[in-house]
This record gives sequence, C-alpha cells and structure tokens, in this order.
Amino acid sequence: MKYINKIQSPADVKRLALEEMNELAVEMRTLLIEKLSRHGGHCGPNLGMVEATIAMHYVFDSPEDKIVFDVSHQSYAHKMLTGRAGAFLSEERYDDVSGYTEPSESEHDNFVIGHTSTSVSLAGGLAKGRDLVGGKHNVIAVIGDGSLSGGEALEGLDWAAELGTNFIIVVNDNQMSIAENHGGLYGNLEELRHSGGTCANNLFRAMGLDYIYVDKGNDIPSLIEAFVKVKDIDHPIVVHINTLKGKGYAPAEADKERWHWSGPFDIATGELKHVSAAENYDELTATHLLKLMKNDPAVCAITAGTPGIWAWTPERRNEAGPQFVDVGIAEEHAVALASGIAKAGGKPVFGVCSSFVQRAYDQVSQDLCINDSPATILVLWGSLSTMTDVTHLCHFDIPLLSNIPNLVYLAPTNREEYLAMLDWSIGYREHPVAIRVPVGLTVPARRPVPTDYSCLNRYEVVSRGKDVAVLALGNFFTLGEKVCAVLREKGIDATLVNPRYITGVDTALMESLKSDHRVVVTLEDGAVEGGFGEKIARHFGSSDMKVLCYGARKEFVDRYVLADFLVANRLREDLVAEDVMKTIGQM
Amino acid sequence: MKYINKIQSPADVKRLALEEMNELAVEMRTLLIEKLSRHGGHCGPNLGMVEATIAMHYVFDSPEDKIVFDVSHQSYAHKMLTGRAGAFLSEERYDDVSGYTEPSESEHDNFVIGHTSTSVSLAGGLAKGRDLVGGKHNVIAVIGDGSLSGGEALEGLDWAAELGTNFIIVVNDNQMSIAENHGGLYGNLEELRHSGGTCANNLFRAMGLDYIYVDKGNDIPSLIEAFVKVKDIDHPIVVHINTLKGKGYAPAEADKERWHWSGPFDIATGELKHVSAAENYDELTATHLLKLMKNDPAVCAITAGTPGIWAWTPERRNEAGPQFVDVGIAEEHAVALASGIAKAGGKPVFGVCSSFVQRAYDQVSQDLCINDSPATILVLWGSLSTMTDVTHLCHFDIPLLSNIPNLVYLAPTNREEYLAMLDWSIGYREHPVAIRVPVGLTVPARRPVPTDYSCLNRYEVVSRGKDVAVLALGNFFTLGEKVCAVLREKGIDATLVNPRYITGVDTALMESLKSDHRVVVTLEDGAVEGGFGEKIARHFGSSDMKVLCYGARKEFVDRYVLADFLVANRLREDLVAEDVMKTIGQM
Repeated sequence: MKYINKIQSPADVKRLALEEMNELAVEMRTLLIEKLSRHGGHCGPNLGMVEATIAMHYVFDSPEDKIVFDVSHQSYAHKMLTGRAGAFLSEERYDDVSGYTEPSESEHDNFVIGHTSTSVSLAGGLAKGRDLVGGKHNVIAVIGDGSLSGGEALEGLDWAAELGTNFIIVVNDNQMSIAENHGGLYGNLEELRHSGGTCANNLFRAMGLDYIYVDKGNDIPSLIEAFVKVKDIDHPIVVHINTLKGKGYAPAEADKERWHWSGPFDIATGELKHVSAAENYDELTATHLLKLMKNDPAVCAITAGTPGIWAWTPERRNEAGPQFVDVGIAEEHAVALASGIAKAGGKPVFGVCSSFVQRAYDQVSQDLCINDSPATILVLWGSLSTMTDVTHLCHFDIPLLSNIPNLVYLAPTNREEYLAMLDWSIGYREHPVAIRVPVGLTVPARRPVPTDYSCLNRYEVVSRGKDVAVLALGNFFTLGEKVCAVLREKGIDATLVNPRYITGVDTALMESLKSDHRVVVTLEDGAVEGGFGEKIARHFGSSDMKVLCYGARKEFVDRYVLADFLVANRLREDLVAEDVMKTIGQM
Repeated sequence: MKYINKIQSPADVKRLALEEMNELAVEMRTLLIEKLSRHGGHCGPNLGMVEATIAMHYVFDSPEDKIVFDVSHQSYAHKMLTGRAGAFLSEERYDDVSGYTEPSESEHDNFVIGHTSTSVSLAGGLAKGRDLVGGKHNVIAVIGDGSLSGGEALEGLDWAAELGTNFIIVVNDNQMSIAENHGGLYGNLEELRHSGGTCANNLFRAMGLDYIYVDKGNDIPSLIEAFVKVKDIDHPIVVHINTLKGKGYAPAEADKERWHWSGPFDIATGELKHVSAAENYDELTATHLLKLMKNDPAVCAITAGTPGIWAWTPERRNEAGPQFVDVGIAEEHAVALASGIAKAGGKPVFGVCSSFVQRAYDQVSQDLCINDSPATILVLWGSLSTMTDVTHLCHFDIPLLSNIPNLVYLAPTNREEYLAMLDWSIGYREHPVAIRVPVGLTVPARRPVPTDYSCLNRYEVVSRGKDVAVLALGNFFTLGEKVCAVLREKGIDATLVNPRYITGVDTALMESLKSDHRVVVTLEDGAVEGGFGEKIARHFGSSDMKVLCYGARKEFVDRYVLADFLVANRLREDLVAEDVMKTIGQM
C-alpha cells in the first residue's frame, strides 16, 4: 500500500501524478474487496465508483465544494480519500465508519443519506442556499445505481433547470439498480451510451439541463477532463458517466445482482462464509406466492427495485413471468399500481421493506385506502432487530400505517398464521390489507390457526389468566410468552393475548378484562409513539385499568447493539415483569 | 339547452354530429360558468377540458374503456356527459356531485382522486390488471394542469413504457399549474408545442413512450382524429393536447391563476361575491415573511405549486424575487430542498397544506429530521374545519409528523404566539421545526407571549385549578376555554393548559398534576389516533389519572357538515363536560 497510507485528505490526491492515481485505484480496490470479504457491505456500487471518486477529489475542492452522494452506499471510496482510509486498512477499525455518508465522521460528508433518489434535491438546496447567503463554490450531486427512477430524484432534476447557477449532477450509470434496471428512462440512457451522448433524444436535456457524456467512466483521465470542463460552470449540468458495476472483482462483474451487497465471502471463490439452510420468512413468501401464481393468473407480486429482500431470485422472477412486476425504485408508483390492479380484479401483493414503505404514505392513504382497493402490502423486516443504520431503521411502520382509515394491518406471530393471513388477504375484497411479515427464521404454530380474518379486530386470547393481561404483538409474541413465564414465577397467572390486528382495538375483549384484570401490558416490536399500545392506553384512559406500553422510545439511533438497545427500552421479560410488579404494588 | 338535456350517457354523445357537439360544448360551458359563479369550484381547468372530454366520450367506450382523471378537479365536463348533468342544471342539485371523480356516483369514475399526479400509476394498474385477468378495453389516463411535475407522475410515466400493451396517456397541457408552471420539463412542452410535436428532444419519448401531438386541444375534430388514431393501440402512447385554461370566460382566460379555483362570483364583472377584509393567518404569514426577507437575504419561502393558499400573490412573489421558490407540484423535492438550504446557512420556510404534507413523510423523516436540518415547515389548514372533501382532509398531519424524532411540532393558539414561534423557528438552529398554522381569521393574544421556545416541551398553564386539567392544543384552545367555562358552572375549577408542543410531553407538569387532579382532557383539532392525546394517555397509563382524548375518530369522511361531525366526535364543550362529570362521578 504505497499510496493510500499517504492520503489524509483530498489535498493529497491532488498531488498525485496520473500513473500514481491509477495505482491508488488498484490499492483502493484491493482494500475494498478485503474489507467487504470480511465485513460484508455494498460491493458492486463501490467497486464501480473508485476512479470517479478519485477524479472528483482531484478536480473539486471538498469540503469547500460540496459533494452529495446518493445512494450514499457508493461512498466508500470517498471515505478512503477523506481521512478515513484507516477504516478500510485494519479489521479492528472496520466499524469506525458507517456504510453511508455521515457528517459526524467528516466535514466532507454533507448529509446522512441512506434512502435513494435524494441527492439532487439535497444538493440543490445547498446550491440554492449558497446563492442566498453568498458563495462561489461548486455543488455536486452524485446520483445513480438505480436511484434515478425515484420520484424525488425526478422532481429534483425537473427543478434543477430553474436554479440557473452552478450545479453539477454526476449520473453514475452502471446499467443496474440492485437488480436489473426497470423503466423507460433506462432505454434513453442506453441510447445515450450507444451514441456517445449525442442522440437527439435526451432525458436530461428534455428536463432543461445541460449535458455531457463520459464513455469511459472508469478511466481517470477521461473523468478528470470532464470534471475540469464543468468545474465553476455557471449553470446546472449533468455529467453522465458510464461505469462498470463491480469492476475489478470478477464474480461481481459477472453477477451484478448477487454482488450489489454481500455478507462476508471467500475472495477466491466468491462463496458466502455464512449460509443458513433454515427457512426464513422471505424465502417462505416467495415460494408461497409462486405456488399461488400457478393456480391463479390474477395473483401478481410487485417490488420497487428490491426483489432480493424477499427472495425473488432471477430464477423465481423468470418463473413468475408477467405476474412479477419490478417497477424500479418507485415506491409511490408501486402502491398506486397495486390499487389499480386490485380495482381491475387482479390480486396484487406489494412487498416492501418497512424503511421504504415510508416513501408512499400518501399513496397508501389516497390511492389505496380512500379507494378501499383490496391490494395486499407485505411490510418486510419491520422490527427493532433488523437494520440498525439510522437511515434504514424499520421502527416506524406501525405509527405510519396503523392510523390510516380503511387499512387492515395484521401482525402474524408464526409461520402458519402468516400464510393463513396472506392467503386470506389475497382473497379478501373489502379493504386493503397490510401484513407485517415476521422477521428471521420461521417459527411453526403451536396452536390452531384460523383461515378467515374478516371479522376485524378480534384478538386471540392464547391463555386466560387474571390480574395482568399481556398484549404481545407480532414478533414480540415470544417476548409476551416469556413475560408471562416470569410473572408466573412471581405468582401471577397472566392472560396472554395475540392481538393479530394492529389497526383496531378489540373493545369487547378489553372491556371483559376490566372484571378481573388490573394491568394491561402492550409489547410492540417498533416505535411506541403513535403505535399500537397508545391506542390501548387511550381505550382504558377513563377506567381504573393500568396500561404499560412497551416499544422503542422516540429517537433516531444508529448502528446500535440490539441487546443494549432492548434493555434501554426495558424490552426484556425480567424488566417488563419488574415494572408490572411495581405497578401492582402501588395499587 | 338543446343538447345537454338529452345526454344520459356517453352513448348519446356518440349520436351527435360534429356541429351538434360544438353546440353541446357551448351549452356545457354556459352551465359550468353559471354553476361556478353561484357555487364556486375549479374554473380554469374545467373550462379548458370541455372539448377534449366530449371527444374522448365520442371515441372511447366508457365504462368498458377506463378513463382516469388527474387532477380529477378537471372532470366536471366528464360528469356532465356521464349521467350527472342534473348537478349542473339546477342549483338545488349542485351538491349531488363532488368536485372530483367519485365511483359511488357513477360507473364512469374509476377512482376517488383529489391529490395530483396519480392518474398514470392508477390507470397503469387498471391496464396491468386487465392484462392479468384478460380484457381488451382501452385504458386512458388524463393528466395535466400542473400535475406532471409530481414524483408519482414521473415514476408512472417511466414505468409505463414497460407495460407493452394498450395504455393511452392524455397530457392536458394548458401551460399552467395552479400558478405558472415551474420545472425544466415545461420548457420541453413549450418546445413541443412550438414545433408541432416534432422537435427531436421529447421528454415522453425519452421515457420510452410513443407520442402524438394535438395542437388544437379545444377543437373537437382534431381531438377526435387523434383519439381515433390511438384507440385500441397495442402499446403505451402519450397524446399531448394543447388547451386553453379558462377557455370561454374572458376573465379566466386573462388571469389564469386567479381563476384556477374561485368562490362564487359575479359573471359580468368576475368579482367575488364574498370578500372579507378581516386578517387571516395566510395573509399574515405572507406579509410577515416578506418583511423578514427584506432584512435578511437568507430567509426564503418555498411552495410546491400552491402559492395562493398562503397568500403569495404574484405581486408578493415578485417582491420576494429569488427568496421565493415555487418548485411546482413536488412536495418531496420541496422538503429535501429546504433541508439543503438550511444546511447551507439559509433560512427556508416551506408552506404546505396539511393534506399535501402527506406526500413527503419520508423526506421529512430522512432528508430533514435525521439530518436535523433547521428548516421550518408551516403546515397550513390543519384542522377538521377546513377542507371537507375526503381527498383533501386536513386531519392527519399530527399523527403523520408528531411521531418523527428530532422534529419540533408547534401548535400556536393566537396571532402573536404564532408570529413569535415563526420568528423563533427561523432563527433556531438545533432542530427542524414545524408549525401548525392556526386556521381562519387571526385572534389576538390575551396573555403575554414568550419569544423563546428552545426549552422544548414546556407547556403553558393558562389558569391553574384542580381536579380536572384541559390540555387544549392549537386551534382547540378556544374549545378548551369553553369546556372550562361549562365545568365552572358545574362547580369545577379546571386547569387550562396550552400545550404548545405537539411533539413531546411536559412530564414535569404532568407529574405535578397528579397531586390534585383526577382527570386530564386532551383536545386536538385532527385525527385522534396516533396523535397528541394518546401520548398523554400513555404517560398516565400506570397512574390513577383518568385521561379522556378528544379528536376525530379514525375514518375517511366526505363533504361533512362540520357541526354534525363535531358532535358525532363529541367535540363540543357541553359534551366534553358531560363526559368529564360522568368520569368523576364514577370515581
């Protein structure tokens, strides 16, 4: 490592000769592959952006010039050149940096960005702000790796033309999203690549923007030439660069989807170090839907650019044919599309990560729920225990969705209950249904599971005790069982309830508890504010029933250790039981 | 009225000769202007769409063929031709129909649509559903009047190319949004108009779509010719029609922004029938911000295509110059832009209607709040008493925003408190701040108002009593005063609290109430589920305090009578007091 050790800041990049920059790129790629193989992370996007990042820091003057990455999971090379190479050099320091841009790490990072399609708008704001308060620096948005199809990006591009001052939008065109690209605009990018950027029809020019093309997007001199040309430009311009996703690691070049993100792997073979043969809920969902599709041409699965997160492998997508729709990164469109398909008699199932369903609140409310279109939304990974990066928290889907009228939001607690709810939802024609898919490995049912859920808001009493009732929602049903076990040791025979419905209160059951219960505990695997437990607290507000609500308190946490986080929120059976005993003691 | 009386359904349109259709258009326009002058409603958009609607129903076979309007406030002519002319013929029947498409009125309406930019995605779903379950009908999306710039519309257009089967997208290009258009794509539309649709650069073709242009978009034969050409087409195509907003009513043609929507007016002069000289909060906001802008170039107001709803007249926008930014209908971009401006040292104030802030939940959470950018969002019209169309309800902003970490959401109760909070927010650099702007006419303060709100979640105790505490949030502060007055008559000296902060509980104050209060009442002018009151109910869950939460119950209501609606939700001082007395009586 001759060069990377000497790069403390972009100023050190500027001192390198071209040949040295090429060697630097080789070193960076070696370090990237090594870290990724041991630590896991975004592979293809970062391997493809090494040269462009070197060239940007060679030409522009960060932090005076502002570079905004989106999706910021392609910012590893940027971190290596801005004083954070240590986090790629030694294994003990791998976790010194996040997988996204993070202003608290460096003045070279302008925003915390994890969701796609945001850089043009955020950087546009930096440019507008510069013009308001005075300044002459460059503002550069880096967008790509599939994020161009998101509504926010397209809104931003459309607006950018109006700014009228310096604004450089680097479009990293690696011909991929997480999976293959979808949407007509990618046809135009292809036309632009094939014509060397000269074809008459040009999406960016149609949006009012100036444009140049760099065919060799992994060639440092070509990139430098382009960036020098646009530096200090007096109007917005798109620099369209053609890069190779996964460049420099043969398996990643060969299978771009597999290598978008990877867990730790063996560098020689590309094989994953940790593979589990046990069934998880994502696999279960894909295989089950595929089975249903074969018997019913109306069933259709929709993804917004993330087929892999619910195990829709290329083989399965191929098998599903037109019954699988990838709309690209476009969650708003996905929800409205599902509403339309349902109104036309189809049976759409939109699978979306809890963190990304946030992008479509208005569409869930307006396009889906006001119209009462009987589509199904599968909310994936909704839990405190899945993604811990602050931008990808899956804590907020319950407050987000559960307060929208007409929506039935279900929380299954085991494998069979989940499948029964999914089957029921696909056939149900009264309301839209969302299902919070359990996380992790499947857990078999240990009690019979009904097939019909159309009598809404009827909770399941799993065991009837007295004094204390534990309403244990979805993933936290097992926590509820444990709380009851601890209480039993303390002489309390608690009632255990599987609420099943997040979106309504079983008022008859709640009223019946008043006769012989004094405390109701609610457990939900997500943010507590605006969620399920508060509805129960309000229901009992005018009564003598005590209600203790458990979930995560309102905060943005980042890269937390799950066990500590749960304890900090008193989400452990002994702590809940302790609170219950204390409450009873005070009565 | 020779023709309109005979039109029971589109079949009757098909029987007309060309000359008769022209006369029908004249009759329809006369009826539109008459109804609008007495009843109010969307003027310009509907006057411009008369011919296109006649031609569509002449060529296509609704309801077999599916027409989806967006923004559906341009569907009045469609209603007249689909069995609902009665609602335009006689004043008593004006309210038989809503101002938007409404499936419960007619099988010719496919969706309830009020928010913009949705038709391509919803109709795309109808087309995809048709292909899944089998069918050969045409699916037509009508989009325009500014709604093309919304992210959902752009996502939908991008996706449409992939459908590969019949799908007709009619772009109503009337050269306007509510105000003038903003965004680079409108430059391309202009180029297309000027070149008769032949210029090489074409946004729609760049998105992979086929395209034809109709220059005379208010000429029935031209429109029929185009629609005949695309009927039963085997792939997606855009029909770009050039129409005149406000056509046929001289004042509306002359001042398109003023006549986008109007209250009742005098046909001869165009003057409004009801004008109030009293100061309202929208006017106050615009004049106050304009004053601040003059002293501070960093202050900047942002709108997403709706300057008029907060009194940003063309004159005021002109005065603000580059300190006023209209991004077009693009709420997601507006929020991210504000975050960027704030990070660059600017002082952005994004004014947005409660119903439309819904479109930007993810941007508020990710781009703004995770980054803790000190921008201000003014939530306008947030109340049960403003818009009563189901698609425009302003009930949900509290559950939507108040559960997002880092955001400070304030609820002022009078004129001076609002201005103090606004001034404070613009200077505050710690967190993003949203303010729920009071609705209606301004109310002067009757108590001193602090200037600093940085000590978060400190409620104001307006009068200290005992037994009962009324937490009266924002617009419902006056209701709280009335509740206290009724309780006083019943011998109860209640504590009246102005919570000010929607996003947090004043735990010290709440704990202090435990000593001599038995009941806490929360009053919020919005949906109760997921809102402010439930946080209070949860806080007191483990205590003996009784909590009664008031707000609107979870439902989508449409065109309700406010007084009835309030009573149904027990939102009247006597009803609240009655509940309080009952609760006390049970203790």
